[in-house]
Formats: sequence, C-alpha cells, structure tokens
Amino acid sequence: MQLHNFNSGPAILPKEVLDQAAAAIHNFNNTGLSILEIGHRTSHFVAVVEEAKQIVKRFMDIGDEYEVLFLQGGATMQFMQVPMNLLDENGLAAICDNGVWGNKAVKEAKLFGPVEVVSDSSDKKHTYLNKELELPQGTTYLHITTNNTVEGTQWHQYPQVNVPLIGDMSSDIFCRPTDFKKFDLIYAGAQKNMGAAGVTMVVIKKSLLGKVNRKIPAILDYQKHIEAGSLLNTPPVFSIYVSLLTLRWIEKEGGLVEMEKRNQEKATLLYNTIEAHPLFNCPIAKEDRSIMNAVFFLNDASKENEFLDLCKKSGMIGVKGYRTVGGIRVSMYNAMPLSSVQAFCDLMNHFS
Amino acid sequence: MQLHNFNSGPAILPKEVLDQAAAAIHNFNNTGLSILEIGHRTSHFVAVVEEAKQIVKRFMDIGDEYEVLFLQGGATMQFMQVPMNLLDENGLAAICDNGVWGNKAVKEAKLFGPVEVVSDSSDKKHTYLNKELELPQGTTYLHITTNNTVEGTQWHQYPQVNVPLIGDMSSDIFCRPTDFKKFDLIYAGAQKNMGAAGVTMVVIKKSLLGKVNRKIPAILDYQKHIEAGSLLNTPPVFSIYVSLLTLRWIEKEGGLVEMEKRNQEKATLLYNTIEAHPLFNCPIAKEDRSIMNAVFFLNDASKENEFLDLCKKSGMIGVKGYRTVGGIRVSMYNAMPLSSVQAFCDLMNHFS
Repeated sequence: MQLHNFNSGPAILPKEVLDQAAAAIHNFNNTGLSILEIGHRTSHFVAVVEEAKQIVKRFMDIGDEYEVLFLQGGATMQFMQVPMNLLDENGLAAICDNGVWGNKAVKEAKLFGPVEVVSDSSDKKHTYLNKELELPQGTTYLHITTNNTVEGTQWHQYPQVNVPLIGDMSSDIFCRPTDFKKFDLIYAGAQKNMGAAGVTMVVIKKSLLGKVNRKIPAILDYQKHIEAGSLLNTPPVFSIYVSLLTLRWIEKEGGLVEMEKRNQEKATLLYNTIEAHPLFNCPIAKEDRSIMNAVFFLNDASKENEFLDLCKKSGMIGVKGYRTVGGIRVSMYNAMPLSSVQAFCDLMNHFS
Repeated sequence: MQLHNFNSGPAILPKEVLDQAAAAIHNFNNTGLSILEIGHRTSHFVAVVEEAKQIVKRFMDIGDEYEVLFLQGGATMQFMQVPMNLLDENGLAAICDNGVWGNKAVKEAKLFGPVEVVSDSSDKKHTYLNKELELPQGTTYLHITTNNTVEGTQWHQYPQVNVPLIGDMSSDIFCRPTDFKKFDLIYAGAQKNMGAAGVTMVVIKKSLLGKVNRKIPAILDYQKHIEAGSLLNTPPVFSIYVSLLTLRWIEKEGGLVEMEKRNQEKATLLYNTIEAHPLFNCPIAKEDRSIMNAVFFLNDASKENEFLDLCKKSGMIGVKGYRTVGGIRVSMYNAMPLSSVQAFCDLMNHFS
C-alpha cells in the first residue's frame, strides 16, 4: 500500500533528500567517514554550514546585516531565548496569541519582562486571525506566529509596524516568497519544511542585539553564537546536513516561487474539496486559511472515527486533528506531492 | 587506504550502528516511513525512548528514584541548566576545575549563585587531578568532569562526599562499570561514547529538584521534562534513535564489563608504547591517565608537524592535540577497535 504522510511535523521529506542522507551515513562527501563520525570543525562540515547559510540568504534576499544560525531546542527554546536576549523590565513585548504556539511564546516571555497580547482570536476558537493590532507605547518588538500549525491559520499579509518584527515561521518557512526583510528575527524548527528534527534556524538582524543588560548564559546568547559562526559548541551535525540537503532540493526544484505554486495548488484542491463536500466543513476564515495545515471537521462529529479509520486503512498518515482541537488536520508541506493530496480528496469524495 | 578515526567527538561509531541508522532512514521499524519523517508521539518512537531509558537504567543499576532524559544543547547547555535548576543565592556550587570543560562549568554556574572551585590543577597545566577536596560549609552540590577530554585526565575514584554529586560524563559515559548511584545527576553529550551529536542524556535523582525558587523557562526545567517523559517538545528524533542503537550495541557486546576490558587493553597498549618510545612523552600523572583520550607530546616539539603529516598520510584521523594544549591526542572510545590503536602504535614505532 502506498503511504501518504500528512504528519504535522516531523513531516514528509523529499525522497532524494532521504537517499542522500542515508548515503552520507555510510560515506560523507567521499571522506570515507560517516557524517555521524566527522569532526564539526573540519573543513567538510564548516562548508556544510556555510552553504546552508548562503542558500538561506538567497531565499530571503538578505545581506550581511543578518546572521543565520543553526541552534537546538526548537521553537520552545526560542520562546524563552528571544525575550532573554531582547526584553527587560524597561521594555514591552507585544505578542500575537492566535493559537497554541503563540500562547506558549506569551508565557515564556513573561519571565523576562512586560508582555501585552495584541492579537487574540480565542473569542472564535482561533478560527481566524485578529489583524487589528494596536501596539502600546514603548513596544520593544512584535512577535507573530506566521502559521498556526494546530489551528490552521496563516498570516498572508504581515502586520505593518514600526517596531522590530519577530516571526516564528516553524511551520511555513520557505513555503513561498515573502518579504523576509520586514523581520528582524525569524526562527524555525527544521522538522516541517526544511529538514529533520534536531535543529532550529535563527535569522537575526545583528543591530537588534546588545540592548539588554541581563547576563546571558553562553549557550543562550545569540551574540556568542554569531561570533562563533554557529559553532559555539558541538552542533547537531546530521540535522544541519539534512537541512542543507532540503534547502538544495528547494532551490533545484525552482526555489520559493515554485514552492508557492505547488503549495497553492495543493491547498486549493483540498479546500475546494472540503467546500464542495456535503459531510465536511472548514470553519477557518477564508482569508486566513493556511496553505500548510488544513483544519476541518465532519458536520456529524460522530462520524469522525469512521473517517479516521478509513484514512488509516488507506495509508493516509497523521490526519487526526490536534488533541485540543479535534477534527481532521491535513499538513501539506513543501515535500508533499499533489498526488497525495489528490488521493486524500478522492478518499473524501468516496466517503458518505 | 584504511582509515582510523581517533576524533575526540563527534567520534567513531560501530559499523553496525551506522548500517542500522542508514536503513532506518529508508524504512524505520517496517513502518514504510523514514525515521526522519515519523511523528515523535507515535507508539513507534515512544518505544524508542522507553527502550533507551531502560538500557541506561540497567547499565547504571538505578531504579525509579532516577529519571533518564534525552535533551538538546550538549554539555554547554548543562553548564547553565544544572545551576539554573539547583543553585540560588542561598546555596554554593563546589566545582572541580581540571580543564577546559570544568572551567566553562564554573563560569556558567556563577550566573546563578555562589561558586567555589574546590579542585584546581592549573598549577601543573592540568596534567593531574587535584583530588584533595575540601567542601565549604553549606555546599549545595559538587560538580566534577569525570573525564577531561582536552587534557587527558580521568577520575578513576570519585570523590567521597556527603553532598549531591554531579558528573559531566560526556567523554567517558559507559566506558566501564562504575558506581553511578554515587551521583545525583549525570549528563553526557552523546557524540563520543553513546551516539551521534544532537542529543544529551541527563540522568537525575528526582529528589534533587524543587529546591530553588527561581522561575525556570519550560524548556530548561528538568521537572517539566520529567513530567513530559522526555517529550516536552519535538525531541532530536534521529539522534535519540542512534543512541538507542549504540546502547543496544554496547549491551550485545557484553555491556560495561566488556567495554572496560577493551578500553583498558587499548589504553595500556598506547601508554606502554609512548613510555617505551625515545621520542615521545606523556606528562599526565600515571594514576590520572584517561583510558578515553591519551594526550602526549614529542620530546622535540619541532618534529610534531612531521609526525602529524605522517599520521595524515597513514589514515590516522583526528590526532592533533586541542588548540590550547598542542601535541598529540588519541581518542579511543568504545567503538574504537584494538586493531586501530595497534596500527597507530606501529606507526609511532616506525617514526624516528
């Protein structure tokens, strides 16, 4: 049976990335050693980090005013690392809380300084994005979750603000061309659109740093990572390499323009199928629907298990909604082929 | 040419671990999915974490009073995470500073409370371990680096103390049977003796926690990781799997007793070769020599590059000493076969 991997993350990767990753475990770069056995300060691995940085800079069209870092700990680490480096008692973090991950960002930021939630969509169970932001006087930065993986919403126009903008792009990084330069700091766990679990990309405008007085432990200090060129200590070598392979794949396939074309096509097919189907509904506001994660429901909730069983039997993996939301969630990251979404839609259309 | 991988970390892994890791990138556990694409909360991966924990508990002969965690960030993260969770202004961290890594542990701990260095071997360039410890009144815990990777020393008898003992075992974890129960917290980056880079094992006696009032960010809070069973957020899935494969390999080969036998044999061969050789010397105190990392020098330093060139031509990888120490360093972790150490000794014996 052919499997269709709709996991929300860790998620589907291109087959050629998997083949190259497996080959490098036997023999990396013709060194005769495994990628798991090489020193992280060897020229071979330093070149991996450098190439990955350069592809990211090309995708984002950014220059040396930014630094690209490959760190550990995922978005959950960034929820605290961002305010630890940027926020103190004299500042104010404005945060958009439009779902599970934004909410965690709020909680962690409060440990480091004042926080104001400037966008809250909980009145309608996060089925839309509250885009009427009012930033308080003295706002230090605005933090948004560009794609809400759990709730199925995505910012298609970023807020226009005159304070530094910080984006958690974990679940929609490089899904389309966008104005990355609007952001002063972007972070993304790699395990959805740009690799495997175990590495977190942080892209940071260097001028943002050095404004809080707090003493920051070395491993959490962006400045120290910048000075060390992402090699402050032993980095997650293999995960960084898989990210490089995935970045190369995106570029070779046609870059972000091509990714958007594919992602738009998949999302249009799925949302149209839901709209046309008598048994399903998508409660997400049309203009805020995510092209990465579609969240939808059966009109008759008692039929949900029957549908999920059918999915399981048909090789559709990872389509059960997040535990706090329920329903169905179909994740369609860059590596997901249109044919898999088509197969899922066919299954929906045969369900009655 | 056959390669001999003496890297200090990331380091040599058993060939069968590499083969199994590569196979799982194509098809993990017969799921039809790659280990890089599976959800971390699936039964397949939860079983990986659980089996790895159980092997660790068998190796350490510890029960449920301890918890085994698989975290990220390496020892550098633990240098700050340990004091953040255990030390405050009312306490005192006693730390053994016998080299580069102990020194970093001192620096990071100072951000969280009072610190006293109770063992310092810098008077003799860290060529020995200062074992005459005097713990000040009110010591909260004693932190030791059980093996000094850079300097080539290793604690063969742990200090007898009546305060909680914390061990950074990054470079000698599971190299031999030892009384792990003497420790209240043990941590180790996996990339030397128990896997690939990207995961850090933390073994912690649960009764140690909850004694400081500081608010701890979720991702740095041991208690929260314990409650979440090492799955607080997306863990480094692949690196944890490689650790499981390595732990299984150790157990299958005969466990820690067999590892000690092999490591002792390799170390004895190498140190004896150095001692007998007219051109080399090892300045490390005999009773403190590491069975993992042998650090030694040419009597005539001007011949060092010639010897290093010969090593390179002969396929001996990673034998240049650490930049602050110089000389030669040969790392002989669990997966290193005696035949590689023999080949290195043969090369030394032909060098004149």
